[in-house]
Amino acid sequence: MSAQEHMHLGTCYYPEHWPEEIWTEDARRMAELGLDRVRISEFAWSRIEPEPGRYDWDWLDRAINTLAEQGLGIILGTPTATPPKWLIDRMPDMLAVDRHGRPRKFGSRRHYCFSHPGYRAECARIVTALAERYGQNPAIAAWQTDNEFGCHNTTLSYSESAAAAFRLWLAEKYGDVDALNRAWGNVFWSMEYPDFDAVDLPNLTVTEPNPAHMLDFRRFSSDQVMSFNRLQTDILRTHSPGRDIVHNFMGFTTDFDHHAVGGDLDVASWDSYPLGFLEQFPNFSAAEKHRYARQGHPDMAAFHHDLYRGCANGRWSVMEQQPGPVNWARFNPAPLPGMVRLWTLEALAHGAELVSYFRWRQAPFAQEQMHSGLLRPDSSEDVAFGEAAAVAAERRALPGPEAARRAPVALIFSYEAQWLLGTQPQGQSFRYLELAFAFYSALRRLGLDIDIVAPDADLSGYRMAVAPSLPIVRPKLLAALTAFDGPLLIGPRSGSKTEDFQIPDTLPPGPLQALLPLKVVRVESLRDGLTVEGEEFSVPRWIEHVETEIAPEHSAGERGVVFRQGGVRYLAGWPDTLLLDRLLRRMADEAGIETLDVPPDIRMRRHGDCVFAFNYGPEDIDIADILPDSAVDRMVIGESTIAAAGVAVWRDAG
Amino acid sequence: MSAQEHMHLGTCYYPEHWPEEIWTEDARRMAELGLDRVRISEFAWSRIEPEPGRYDWDWLDRAINTLAEQGLGIILGTPTATPPKWLIDRMPDMLAVDRHGRPRKFGSRRHYCFSHPGYRAECARIVTALAERYGQNPAIAAWQTDNEFGCHNTTLSYSESAAAAFRLWLAEKYGDVDALNRAWGNVFWSMEYPDFDAVDLPNLTVTEPNPAHMLDFRRFSSDQVMSFNRLQTDILRTHSPGRDIVHNFMGFTTDFDHHAVGGDLDVASWDSYPLGFLEQFPNFSAAEKHRYARQGHPDMAAFHHDLYRGCANGRWSVMEQQPGPVNWARFNPAPLPGMVRLWTLEALAHGAELVSYFRWRQAPFAQEQMHSGLLRPDSSEDVAFGEAAAVAAERRALPGPEAARRAPVALIFSYEAQWLLGTQPQGQSFRYLELAFAFYSALRRLGLDIDIVAPDADLSGYRMAVAPSLPIVRPKLLAALTAFDGPLLIGPRSGSKTEDFQIPDTLPPGPLQALLPLKVVRVESLRDGLTVEGEEFSVPRWIEHVETEIAPEHSAGERGVVFRQGGVRYLAGWPDTLLLDRLLRRMADEAGIETLDVPPDIRMRRHGDCVFAFNYGPEDIDIADILPDSAVDRMVIGESTIAAAGVAVWRDAG
Amino acid sequence: MSAQEHMHLGTCYYPEHWPEEIWTEDARRMAELGLDRVRISEFAWSRIEPEPGRYDWDWLDRAINTLAEQGLGIILGTPTATPPKWLIDRMPDMLAVDRHGRPRKFGSRRHYCFSHPGYRAECARIVTALAERYGQNPAIAAWQTDNEFGCHNTTLSYSESAAAAFRLWLAEKYGDVDALNRAWGNVFWSMEYPDFDAVDLPNLTVTEPNPAHMLDFRRFSSDQVMSFNRLQTDILRTHSPGRDIVHNFMGFTTDFDHHAVGGDLDVASWDSYPLGFLEQFPNFSAAEKHRYARQGHPDMAAFHHDLYRGCANGRWSVMEQQPGPVNWARFNPAPLPGMVRLWTLEALAHGAELVSYFRWRQAPFAQEQMHSGLLRPDSSEDVAFGEAAAVAAERRALPGPEAARRAPVALIFSYEAQWLLGTQPQGQSFRYLELAFAFYSALRRLGLDIDIVAPDADLSGYRMAVAPSLPIVRPKLLAALTAFDGPLLIGPRSGSKTEDFQIPDTLPPGPLQALLPLKVVRVESLRDGLTVEGEEFSVPRWIEHVETEIAPEHSAGERGVVFRQGGVRYLAGWPDTLLLDRLLRRMADEAGIETLDVPPDIRMRRHGDCVFAFNYGPEDIDIADILPDSAVDRMVIGESTIAAAGVAVWRDAG
Repeated sequence: MSAQEHMHLGTCYYPEHWPEEIWTEDARRMAELGLDRVRISEFAWSRIEPEPGRYDWDWLDRAINTLAEQGLGIILGTPTATPPKWLIDRMPDMLAVDRHGRPRKFGSRRHYCFSHPGYRAECARIVTALAERYGQNPAIAAWQTDNEFGCHNTTLSYSESAAAAFRLWLAEKYGDVDALNRAWGNVFWSMEYPDFDAVDLPNLTVTEPNPAHMLDFRRFSSDQVMSFNRLQTDILRTHSPGRDIVHNFMGFTTDFDHHAVGGDLDVASWDSYPLGFLEQFPNFSAAEKHRYARQGHPDMAAFHHDLYRGCANGRWSVMEQQPGPVNWARFNPAPLPGMVRLWTLEALAHGAELVSYFRWRQAPFAQEQMHSGLLRPDSSEDVAFGEAAAVAAERRALPGPEAARRAPVALIFSYEAQWLLGTQPQGQSFRYLELAFAFYSALRRLGLDIDIVAPDADLSGYRMAVAPSLPIVRPKLLAALTAFDGPLLIGPRSGSKTEDFQIPDTLPPGPLQALLPLKVVRVESLRDGLTVEGEEFSVPRWIEHVETEIAPEHSAGERGVVFRQGGVRYLAGWPDTLLLDRLLRRMADEAGIETLDVPPDIRMRRHGDCVFAFNYGPEDIDIADILPDSAVDRMVIGESTIAAAGVAVWRDAG
Repeated sequence: MSAQEHMHLGTCYYPEHWPEEIWTEDARRMAELGLDRVRISEFAWSRIEPEPGRYDWDWLDRAINTLAEQGLGIILGTPTATPPKWLIDRMPDMLAVDRHGRPRKFGSRRHYCFSHPGYRAECARIVTALAERYGQNPAIAAWQTDNEFGCHNTTLSYSESAAAAFRLWLAEKYGDVDALNRAWGNVFWSMEYPDFDAVDLPNLTVTEPNPAHMLDFRRFSSDQVMSFNRLQTDILRTHSPGRDIVHNFMGFTTDFDHHAVGGDLDVASWDSYPLGFLEQFPNFSAAEKHRYARQGHPDMAAFHHDLYRGCANGRWSVMEQQPGPVNWARFNPAPLPGMVRLWTLEALAHGAELVSYFRWRQAPFAQEQMHSGLLRPDSSEDVAFGEAAAVAAERRALPGPEAARRAPVALIFSYEAQWLLGTQPQGQSFRYLELAFAFYSALRRLGLDIDIVAPDADLSGYRMAVAPSLPIVRPKLLAALTAFDGPLLIGPRSGSKTEDFQIPDTLPPGPLQALLPLKVVRVESLRDGLTVEGEEFSVPRWIEHVETEIAPEHSAGERGVVFRQGGVRYLAGWPDTLLLDRLLRRMADEAGIETLDVPPDIRMRRHGDCVFAFNYGPEDIDIADILPDSAVDRMVIGESTIAAAGVAVWRDAG
Repeated sequence: MSAQEHMHLGTCYYPEHWPEEIWTEDARRMAELGLDRVRISEFAWSRIEPEPGRYDWDWLDRAINTLAEQGLGIILGTPTATPPKWLIDRMPDMLAVDRHGRPRKFGSRRHYCFSHPGYRAECARIVTALAERYGQNPAIAAWQTDNEFGCHNTTLSYSESAAAAFRLWLAEKYGDVDALNRAWGNVFWSMEYPDFDAVDLPNLTVTEPNPAHMLDFRRFSSDQVMSFNRLQTDILRTHSPGRDIVHNFMGFTTDFDHHAVGGDLDVASWDSYPLGFLEQFPNFSAAEKHRYARQGHPDMAAFHHDLYRGCANGRWSVMEQQPGPVNWARFNPAPLPGMVRLWTLEALAHGAELVSYFRWRQAPFAQEQMHSGLLRPDSSEDVAFGEAAAVAAERRALPGPEAARRAPVALIFSYEAQWLLGTQPQGQSFRYLELAFAFYSALRRLGLDIDIVAPDADLSGYRMAVAPSLPIVRPKLLAALTAFDGPLLIGPRSGSKTEDFQIPDTLPPGPLQALLPLKVVRVESLRDGLTVEGEEFSVPRWIEHVETEIAPEHSAGERGVVFRQGGVRYLAGWPDTLLLDRLLRRMADEAGIETLDVPPDIRMRRHGDCVFAFNYGPEDIDIADILPDSAVDRMVIGESTIAAAGVAVWRDAG
């Protein structure tokens, strides 16, 4: 994608859902609204290939032409998330199998198993056909592979195909089965395997399976997503050079390594549904679900913006933006008026190349008929239409994606940590994703900008770094942490496991003892309500017993909770908000980064030469206390008092 | 059934459970108690046909004779709810299959699949054999088909038989598969079927199946119950002309269309377990479950009386009346002394032809050994025995079933609405049955009598009508609503779908826009605790955004909640108690129907020339405030102060 | 086992987990710590027999020698709880099947079905091989069969093997199928079986199966555990005469009859995890789980000590003692410092022959890597090491197991009662195990010592007896109760069923009417919060309606709750703490047994000539009020003020 001055706006469109007579008018209205991108075709397999081997390109040719004539760049989706019925009937064993051993039936979407060789061949065939036909078409701005890998809990499949592929993966990794038996510690309960063919998938065991077995199965399953995606990117790169390849990730989905999949993409995009995610994600409190029911949690979208920006060399976008009520959460309220604009501007402030609204027009039929769009089913304008139009105008005065710069703070996020700690929580409230989100949120409440980076990221250039938890510390990570010269906070359970899911010989934090001379000799998980009380804070959920010569920086009773040597701190428990805020503010001071007392519902973000403030609250808020001197004179959007769901933007003095 | 002066009383008896020596004494005691009906044989297949093709009629002949000699009219049940083991072993695929794909095993009851042709043939055979033997027997007063269709979640079966029958049903309905694909909108996720044989049942899909697929499966499943029942009624009508055919429905069971099944019956009956239903039904609050633990909810039995009275041309009865503690609820307390009498008199007040106590004697063995009866297992009298005796005497002074007259208020209840809204609640607290019950309860608290009617009912003669929700409005319904000239209240989501489960072209309320010129342009579902605040009421659960020229009659903030044009009102949200009470009272005023301030635990009902008042509370209540002048002089039963679980009846002045 | 002066201390050791180089040092440290027993090999099948028929004894020979050289007596485990993969692959149908019909997969432990003949043959083979090799080895002090029968819900299997064995068991029990049909009351829902082969297992039925069917399946399943264990004990007795045979039971596990299995053992042992059991067991309150999170419930360990002491002629031990945090509970905090010593001394005070710590060294790999040991993974001493050393010294001043004497109070505990009442709770809060625990706890709060005995136990010698509930009263039990001449308390639902799971002809309490002339004519189960209020107590959960000439000793409103005739009392409801305390104190007075006002966190126990007091609270407690005169002069351990997790022991004056 060539350098772009302003963020693109787009929408998701399904010409196959509508009479051809209205396509032209639809395209015209898109362009008039200010959209310049449109994603199509990602669920259209049954129309592209109505019968095995018989392709029907005509309608798609016409649709692409109609849209292109209005100047819309097409993002063309491969339709592999919805294989049609004739394909399933030809190879019924391509269906994924759930953890109870039940094949997942046709009738919705994402019913395929990533490991089925026959299905992979079918995907290669249809993607090749699409790429051959449209790869050189100038209307095609980008490709999207498949749709929302992992959504609906579809990364893990317990099929025969998956078992066969897992055995090959293990043989490749371990070489001989004794190595596997040693790595997993299979002697433990006579679980030793005589050969790789004897290994089965880790479901339906009497009590928990070997955690090393589970972790390898999760690594394998993530690799299968990666290779499934790469099968498509390889074909697309061959037949359609120069076009961006994108995949649209989901929120709070961690079953595969997005950093790894992102490595095969040009642009990482994601599907942002702030209200749906708030309602469905278990770790938001009831109070948060109530207060932010019509706004979404103030850190939810930003967390994912910053996470996915770290997945494909900094290029990212929002492929699906919630435009109004959705259909799939337990409860589906409407966004406050203004929220769709706010969400769009916040994506812009985090450097998005594109925000695309899902969907152009609400469909009157099938599963998502209660999902709103820019247009209502009767083609009249829905609320989001006007808000998108507002942003289409406003973006011209705001920095484009190229203005993005490195944030001062790095947060190291590890998908493998999520798998490992999810496999062995050791206390049911130890949830890695929630811990990472708490770190992120605490940094945001201090007004800081954050890059979320992979465990193998280069940390140079950051002024401060936090690692909520890194159970496995490989040499490259250790080197990066050692080399880092700003304040560094390392969270609980870091260094607590080897790559083989074993406790390190020197006890946790294992390799990190090179940075911090301490030993975690015991850990405790604490039921809800049971805490260890500290100085003006308390430690819930998790506390570690540490042996060290270092005097603790913070203690809770007889337990040291924070240990510091030089710029490195180790956090030996689950931090509450008070402790996190205090620690992170001190670290920012040490790093020379300014922090603010941001009001609870306000969030800030710097982008290019602009500073953005977003009001996630349901009432007006005056941010005069945190506005720099004379910033009111540099206001680009809004003013000192920000309305509910409102935005203020000013030019940075510097 | 010939005209009857007084309500019948009966019991459910299982001669096969008891030594033949005590049958005569049992029958004598029944008659002495005042019973004149007895239901038998509905679970006796293994005794009627101990081996394939070998019938043993002797015991049943003697049982019928013994009972008939005491003047008891026999209600003879067909035993098809409990096919015996030898039959299952001959055709194991006749077992129903649950939604997880597991065959439901033999060992309790209702294990058959409604769609299995072989089982249907077996049913036809055993029903024919019974009808041939007893069809002309003068002791037989009526027939009961099967037992409690749908109980234990048995309407839906995911068997191969069901799939095959569903495909035929679809082919019959749609003619060609393209019509089906269009109606369901299968283009949505490449769900298009190449032919009817490709359609599977909508279970075990990765995410939700197409709601149109589910709705058709529910319609089909209901039709299967109807045709299964009709197979029996056809045989019985042929061989036993002049006898009533009855089926005993359950409470809060909505998986099949009771109006449709009722169309093949002479009398709709139901099984009334007020305490069990209170405990098990999820939508009663904990406070209600506590307060009414020994009485049942004050509107539960009445709701079903009025519902089932609308199913078979007004003729209805209680086939099983709870006589004491049952065995099957999470908790099983005993009714307050007097409640069995109260329940019986309330059935009488709603026009029941029969109240039959389940069961005569508590069985000491098998699944229901903890279910009480009129007699204890040792043949001594249990509490209900005396209360039944009291009613047997009292009924002689009270109006019989023929005294029933049309109620002033019609409540339109739709089973299809329940399936549709259950398939697509769009917010997990949108529960149609609960909404309908709330409307019913609010009307009862105003002292009104209600007929619950089907969506295709003739509304002429009613003075006021309410429709809690009618998502699909067919022409006949629209005509009836248009013709209705009293106050009419139409609830949320009415007219929101076409018959194909699509959003109408003109947006909701679709066809109802002929009555009310408004458009619902957006809907919101609200999590518990989140409400839209109105004038002295609040809107929980559901709020609609309406575009219209009509000024709202009631608003909540900027949202109109009630819109009125002429006598028609549309309710654009979930009503709380305050709003419902206010609206319904105003409508009654407009209709010229008198309303009362009925004390919370009291319920009223008019029948023939009598007015009944029932005290569902645990304390005495003086109803002087709502007693008409001089009603105390016309008291038939009781007095102005009604004891806990007590009843007062007076002759109407008019 | 020869008479022993002092309680043994031991540990569980897995030489196969560690490099052979450190075995000698491990053994030396064990001996130095004061241990004299070590359990090994119970999960080592894959190392003993790496391939079918190829045994590798060398390593085990060396391990045994190494340990024996340090004077450690070996407890050798048969490895049948973890059949290796090659065995499963040879006979895949030996896997157990869960109640959903899913085979339980290899990959953890306890995956076998007790009923599979092929697996039984394999067990006989491996146990014979072990017994032949080590049966006469002087280092072998005892054998352990298998490991934790029933753990992870593994007693019940719904496999084809189980079904086949169940049919044979039924044929053996009933002789002809008509007897079975009569006993179960199968006429009820046409459930009559034409022959034994027609009987299936009672899972996956539409609604509840016949409770008699379920009870027989539970009896059968318990018998399968017993015969599976006996297969091993017979072999071991043949080849290794003079060695004790032990099995290690679990806590709160009731799916098989431990009295029956215990009859084939020399010593009953159990695995005591006070913190894990507190967290996992559903019937402790949230307040208890909070207060005792680091101590365990004050009666949990003692209950099991007293229960299992009654299983093998009074000989018992703790085979696995929790030494620190475990890995398997929802939350896994650390014990308060001192608790491991307290638990060990409490076992001693109840007469344990052995307390063995699980495990010697924390394993760094596989499922239990987060389970602590006496040593940490790096071989340094963990907290429990020091506490075990303390007890090793202290035990020399305390009575040994032979000092045990009969307690004054017998509590009759029936596994069959648990099965029956679990099959038919009739109210979801009627939990037999919780009722028994409440009786036990109330007795303990009065400072009393208790023997928990089987329903067929000889009660002579006891001064007082309580039976929380005994639904089935067989002649031998009736005779024992009749002969008993101390105060006797019989709990609700006693005598309420025949052996065939039917209500007795004379109504409950059936045979007990010989002791107490009363009839239970009705029962009620009460939802949480609904109670019947009595004189200074209330009756939650369960209340019975009793007809009798006896005036009640206690009443709640119109309901008699306690009925007494002579020394026998019947409790016609679920007792709250107030009623239980009052009743039991009065009975103790009648029996002439002294009771105490034991502080809430303190528990007492007499053993030999010593009295023990244990502080389960988190604060110091002064027990001066309950100390006998001059006991401070006879203190063996501790003093009048007992620290948190502390112990005081004094010589009895008498």
